[in-house]
Amino acid sequence: MSNDTNGPNHQALVDIGRAKIAWAKNHSPVLGSFVFKHLNDGTLRNKRIAVVVHLEAKTAYLATLLANAGANVVAAGSNPATTDGAVVAALRDAGIHVVSDAGSDLATWERELHRAADFEPDYVIDDGAELTARIGKYRPDVFQSLKGVSEQTTTGTARLYALEHAGKLPFPALTANNARCKHMFDNRYGTGQTTLQAVLRLSGRRLAGSKIAVIGYGYVGRGIAEYAAKLHARVMVIEVDPVRALEAHMDGHHVGTAHDVLPHAEFVITATGGIRALARQDFSLLTHDVILANAGHHDLEIDVDALSNAADTISHPSPDTTTYTLGTRDVHVLCNGALVNIAGGSGHPVEIMDLSFAVQGIGAHYLINTPLDPGVHVLPKVLDDAIARSKLESLGVTLAQPRPEQVDRHDGLIDEIEL
Amino acid sequence: MSNDTNGPNHQALVDIGRAKIAWAKNHSPVLGSFVFKHLNDGTLRNKRIAVVVHLEAKTAYLATLLANAGANVVAAGSNPATTDGAVVAALRDAGIHVVSDAGSDLATWERELHRAADFEPDYVIDDGAELTARIGKYRPDVFQSLKGVSEQTTTGTARLYALEHAGKLPFPALTANNARCKHMFDNRYGTGQTTLQAVLRLSGRRLAGSKIAVIGYGYVGRGIAEYAAKLHARVMVIEVDPVRALEAHMDGHHVGTAHDVLPHAEFVITATGGIRALARQDFSLLTHDVILANAGHHDLEIDVDALSNAADTISHPSPDTTTYTLGTRDVHVLCNGALVNIAGGSGHPVEIMDLSFAVQGIGAHYLINTPLDPGVHVLPKVLDDAIARSKLESLGVTLAQPRPEQVDRHDGLIDEIEL
Amino acid sequence: MSNDTNGPNHQALVDIGRAKIAWAKNHSPVLGSFVFKHLNDGTLRNKRIAVVVHLEAKTAYLATLLANAGANVVAAGSNPATTDGAVVAALRDAGIHVVSDAGSDLATWERELHRAADFEPDYVIDDGAELTARIGKYRPDVFQSLKGVSEQTTTGTARLYALEHAGKLPFPALTANNARCKHMFDNRYGTGQTTLQAVLRLSGRRLAGSKIAVIGYGYVGRGIAEYAAKLHARVMVIEVDPVRALEAHMDGHHVGTAHDVLPHAEFVITATGGIRALARQDFSLLTHDVILANAGHHDLEIDVDALSNAADTISHPSPDTTTYTLGTRDVHVLCNGALVNIAGGSGHPVEIMDLSFAVQGIGAHYLINTPLDPGVHVLPKVLDDAIARSKLESLGVTLAQPRPEQVDRHDGLIDEIEL
Amino acid sequence: MSNDTNGPNHQALVDIGRAKIAWAKNHSPVLGSFVFKHLNDGTLRNKRIAVVVHLEAKTAYLATLLANAGANVVAAGSNPATTDGAVVAALRDAGIHVVSDAGSDLATWERELHRAADFEPDYVIDDGAELTARIGKYRPDVFQSLKGVSEQTTTGTARLYALEHAGKLPFPALTANNARCKHMFDNRYGTGQTTLQAVLRLSGRRLAGSKIAVIGYGYVGRGIAEYAAKLHARVMVIEVDPVRALEAHMDGHHVGTAHDVLPHAEFVITATGGIRALARQDFSLLTHDVILANAGHHDLEIDVDALSNAADTISHPSPDTTTYTLGTRDVHVLCNGALVNIAGGSGHPVEIMDLSFAVQGIGAHYLINTPLDPGVHVLPKVLDDAIARSKLESLGVTLAQPRPEQVDRHDGLIDEIEL
Repeated sequence: MSNDTNGPNHQALVDIGRAKIAWAKNHSPVLGSFVFKHLNDGTLRNKRIAVVVHLEAKTAYLATLLANAGANVVAAGSNPATTDGAVVAALRDAGIHVVSDAGSDLATWERELHRAADFEPDYVIDDGAELTARIGKYRPDVFQSLKGVSEQTTTGTARLYALEHAGKLPFPALTANNARCKHMFDNRYGTGQTTLQAVLRLSGRRLAGSKIAVIGYGYVGRGIAEYAAKLHARVMVIEVDPVRALEAHMDGHHVGTAHDVLPHAEFVITATGGIRALARQDFSLLTHDVILANAGHHDLEIDVDALSNAADTISHPSPDTTTYTLGTRDVHVLCNGALVNIAGGSGHPVEIMDLSFAVQGIGAHYLINTPLDPGVHVLPKVLDDAIARSKLESLGVTLAQPRPEQVDRHDGLIDEIEL
Repeated sequence: MSNDTNGPNHQALVDIGRAKIAWAKNHSPVLGSFVFKHLNDGTLRNKRIAVVVHLEAKTAYLATLLANAGANVVAAGSNPATTDGAVVAALRDAGIHVVSDAGSDLATWERELHRAADFEPDYVIDDGAELTARIGKYRPDVFQSLKGVSEQTTTGTARLYALEHAGKLPFPALTANNARCKHMFDNRYGTGQTTLQAVLRLSGRRLAGSKIAVIGYGYVGRGIAEYAAKLHARVMVIEVDPVRALEAHMDGHHVGTAHDVLPHAEFVITATGGIRALARQDFSLLTHDVILANAGHHDLEIDVDALSNAADTISHPSPDTTTYTLGTRDVHVLCNGALVNIAGGSGHPVEIMDLSFAVQGIGAHYLINTPLDPGVHVLPKVLDDAIARSKLESLGVTLAQPRPEQVDRHDGLIDEIEL
Repeated sequence: MSNDTNGPNHQALVDIGRAKIAWAKNHSPVLGSFVFKHLNDGTLRNKRIAVVVHLEAKTAYLATLLANAGANVVAAGSNPATTDGAVVAALRDAGIHVVSDAGSDLATWERELHRAADFEPDYVIDDGAELTARIGKYRPDVFQSLKGVSEQTTTGTARLYALEHAGKLPFPALTANNARCKHMFDNRYGTGQTTLQAVLRLSGRRLAGSKIAVIGYGYVGRGIAEYAAKLHARVMVIEVDPVRALEAHMDGHHVGTAHDVLPHAEFVITATGGIRALARQDFSLLTHDVILANAGHHDLEIDVDALSNAADTISHPSPDTTTYTLGTRDVHVLCNGALVNIAGGSGHPVEIMDLSFAVQGIGAHYLINTPLDPGVHVLPKVLDDAIARSKLESLGVTLAQPRPEQVDRHDGLIDEIEL
Repeated sequence: MSNDTNGPNHQALVDIGRAKIAWAKNHSPVLGSFVFKHLNDGTLRNKRIAVVVHLEAKTAYLATLLANAGANVVAAGSNPATTDGAVVAALRDAGIHVVSDAGSDLATWERELHRAADFEPDYVIDDGAELTARIGKYRPDVFQSLKGVSEQTTTGTARLYALEHAGKLPFPALTANNARCKHMFDNRYGTGQTTLQAVLRLSGRRLAGSKIAVIGYGYVGRGIAEYAAKLHARVMVIEVDPVRALEAHMDGHHVGTAHDVLPHAEFVITATGGIRALARQDFSLLTHDVILANAGHHDLEIDVDALSNAADTISHPSPDTTTYTLGTRDVHVLCNGALVNIAGGSGHPVEIMDLSFAVQGIGAHYLINTPLDPGVHVLPKVLDDAIARSKLESLGVTLAQPRPEQVDRHDGLIDEIEL
């Protein structure tokens, strides 16, 4: 952490961070109206809330909203590569407790999360269940007394279900990811668009006519494959789920195993939400000059450590590219395997995060105000719908109304049955 | 029904029907291998099964498979406009009981369904819950003793849930529609593609640059809108669900009410799965020369009776088109408001129906062999996956396998938590 | 030709044909206003004009417009498989001389074209240069005195240039195909859309996930490939021109030779505008159950005669499908290799033909009113633009106007140079 | 220009520039083989060649190739906003004469071009005809003795034709832009993709569901509109050419005037190749928070000076964004109106520039080796084709070969005509 918290450079940094947060605010109408109104009903006052999401301007605006509603907020980054120093400076300047700094290495980041656990939050707005899992390991006392977790991602949702299945979830957890206002927009429009943008910008290559392998065909992978095909790439998919694999086939992509696919790929994007999607045994399949990038939650989808061990030489042709030379082949990894659209870009479009963070903000409010059994829950449809209504209103879109004569969709058939 | 069951014309009809069913068989590898093996384990012997789906070649092949496995099958059409006379002749020639004929009017069709109810089936493979609902009304005794229903569509699924909610579902019902191997392919690739094909062929118009209104943005409506946009149409969507409306907006379509949208539409396609999606109060909004067509289950989505009452004159410029003249405006309805892709085309692609009918065939087998509580059930994921695996195999696609080192997706985090 | 020209069936046929032509008229605003005005300035009076295009409703409307403007018109079909009997009946009933009949075989069609040559036209509106070439062979006297030809297609344009190059073009010929209002719309939106529509409807197959080979990547082939990719097919292209082959590659298609491509294709579409694009030596490369169809001008792109010679058996599973069995492989040819979108569909969308026939109608008027040297000419840009303006007007589209301050695009740079 | 040409920082800059040029070389197989071979036949030796294109790595590789082939090269940037300082340092270090520096203002840039004119080149590889026009104005003596110009862009081609039309073109000029290997790839795949990438990254906005106005529907505008529609934007087009306007309509875009379109646009992209496409009279039509960016050659397409005069306040929320506040409306201009994909991104994909610069390199060689009349010329088709062949070879794509039996495309018809 820089000690330079009083000098002129510090103030410039605060000003830049403030401008970024103001920009996020200006383009987040659902957070600014619908969510704002809910949060400010007094129920957040003095609640201890940890916000552990990629620590950039949009997250900062969510944290600010919670703090302004009276909550006692601690903010931490869910990934060491994605923390924005200017935003951190502005948050601290506004009196919000931030435990993360830009540029932390993995060990430092672990310590930051421990500090967030020591904050002893009642509620966690989490991403990848990173803080939740660490509270469980490091502060089991806090884990037992947690009042609720709202989780952002597919990866974190899988972890929460695993905890529940193992009988280790003593508090209610909301999977924001399963809200329609989250996964139907964020995972599809957000990640697909911004992942390819970042890969193309950082690599300087063209997609038209090139071959790209997408590993994992969930919402994120499907979005990436769809955009890549539209940009005239030839898409190949590696997927272990048979229905998704069939979907990828019907979408016009070549579906196969790592052995079928990797020797042809000019780009490989991992999007499994798991770990080691591209691992030691795959390296011999990669072609010279291939670009590797990760769109999934973990830095661990591309096994960069194994790649490092396998490489004859390692070079850095540009700040965001590491080149591993394996014999005669150069393998380029973007952003060291971190989420390429955030670490190597500016993350999701602000209007999409307005929806995702609305789900998180409303989710936190719902957890605070609703008695729920321990276990994984989904945001009630009525709140999901209300977020969509607020967004439509901000967009000036008029929703059609159901008409009385349409209400009996069953044309009397059901009513006439008597048992 | 034609009495001409022995003459040479009859034999020619049987031959045509047989050729069509043979064609369906040749392009249905999942039905022919995976489903065939399941059905022929002896458990279908002497089971009374009603198959009530659009009565064309692909349905006939499913009915034949069931009969060959020893079941006592009755076949009926789920819609009077979609029954293929040659297929009926071939089925009857093969000794299968068929209660429907081509060209029936609505009253005749009702009598056909009553005959199917009087067959007293144990199991129903249904479409729109058309037979199930009629058994409920007309033969409550049979309704009480039904052992299971497997339902094809969104509309029928809604009806089954409504019955369950009203406490009127005394048997287990499988919603084939909710199987991923059904709705992820049939509703999206099947209906979207074939609806537009039929509309363009029957109307002789171009989509490029034209404005098309899609009413309802479920799987079917979304598929139609997606294809229309790809064919360079400008798509407008009317939808009452706020999240779907937002999805339509983010997909790049204009979203609005009937008043916003209809005065600009050159084509209007209904896809709500309900009734009166285009009704009396909308007629004044339609422009001269507009084409109306229906892609939803019901002939009732376009209120053709009301249109008929409102029209000054009615003409038939071509066999599949009815023109209603309202003052100075001509409104053209395709296929009298029946499902345009089946009534005015040849239905879904055969390879897609291979998946949908695999779900129905496996669903019937599952109902017969599994003790289930009354209520609506979904096909177990393991069977859904097995259907997809069989399809992938027939397509020569190799599925990737999960690797041991990927199995702990949670990288140890969960295990280390102790409560 | 049917002799039944007075009976009630004949009148019904005339009525059907009239209704079809009226429908074409109603959807052809450019022909009905801009072209109508030009043609009716008196200059067409008593000119002998042959119209030799696919003889269906849209062509009939063009012929009617010319006749109503005072021309002495003979109409013939440019392909024996695409003549519409009802349209022929209606044209004859209206007093227009028609030499073609529906259902003619190739020999009859040749005789029909000879009759058109014997009509001794001054001007020919041609398609594929079919009449022009036959006048050249059969009636060199008429060929020498021809005053002008306006040609519809890429194929015919190539023939005209070949004639010019061989010193055998003693009259001015307009290549309508090179007008932007023709090839930018007709070849791309018209053929791409309607070819795939016809192939999918006649075959009952799905494109999603399937492999389609397109032979020839000109405007037509590119349109087909584009639509097929959008319908989620995997497209393979065979092309001999290197720049077009590179374009196909950059569009995301697999580019290769017949040996690379055909063994993987489930559909093969020819679109070279030449002959024998799929010939004897290719048959051993085709897979079982492949669908072959032609989108190019000639019935000769698929060498059906050679296929017939090579086949063990030939069958007709449906009216529009011929199945050639080669050993264990079935090869299905749609519409006997004729243009599948016209012979097996209803041709191009009417609004697109409004543009193409506007070019032909204005082209004929231009030939009549403008002294031109022998040779191939292109419609002047000012007329091409005027057709587009008329279409935009009919569509209610307002064209932006250049502004004075934009007029010097060169920002003074050019003016300041003095030599 | 920095004087620090010997310090350690300078060497680091040289190394960065070298690495960039090496990267360009590694991904430019056509330049590296086909073009290299042509250039090194000895004919370039001691020729004075000016290379005036955006001065970044790919241009530097072209300049290096020319210099290594023995030419006496001067390099200048065609736009002051797009010169890369590291690349300049590396070129100078390699002994190539570079007159431009990064960060020059307009006046400095003019002086740089004058220095390039004073180099008295025999040949110019130009972009926008920027150096050609300045030689004409500033050094008419050099202009008279110029031996040839090869021009990159639509804008520059228009200028050369204007010069020819005004009788002011005393030397042969090749329009590289009209080579198929240039405009079919560079303008379409290159600019469309990279312009939207840059706009989305710099603005942090989403395209899905948003409205974007594209001014100008040439190759560049069409590419932008196509990609924007694929990313689910709703596209509006302003175009003065009626055929292009009709094409935009048929592509599914809304076509209208500035008054129709601008009040709805969230993004406005200029792509006319002219000047003042977005000018004083348009400002009142812009909505609050609109993003303006330019994809055309000139910084003058968006009249930034007029916007500056009209603004109440001007701010710089980020390095690449200038915000003009007009009353209550904020109007954001990206990269000050310079080409957003180069000034705010890293330009075209390297593999696309390999084609464009192959055309320029081969064009220069052709000018040097071929006696041509003064006037605008197009690269011969045989050379265009050869470039495509070389690219296909580098991509491992096998081109199909015409077969003898296809050669007579006219099926004998032409031969049988005798005059």
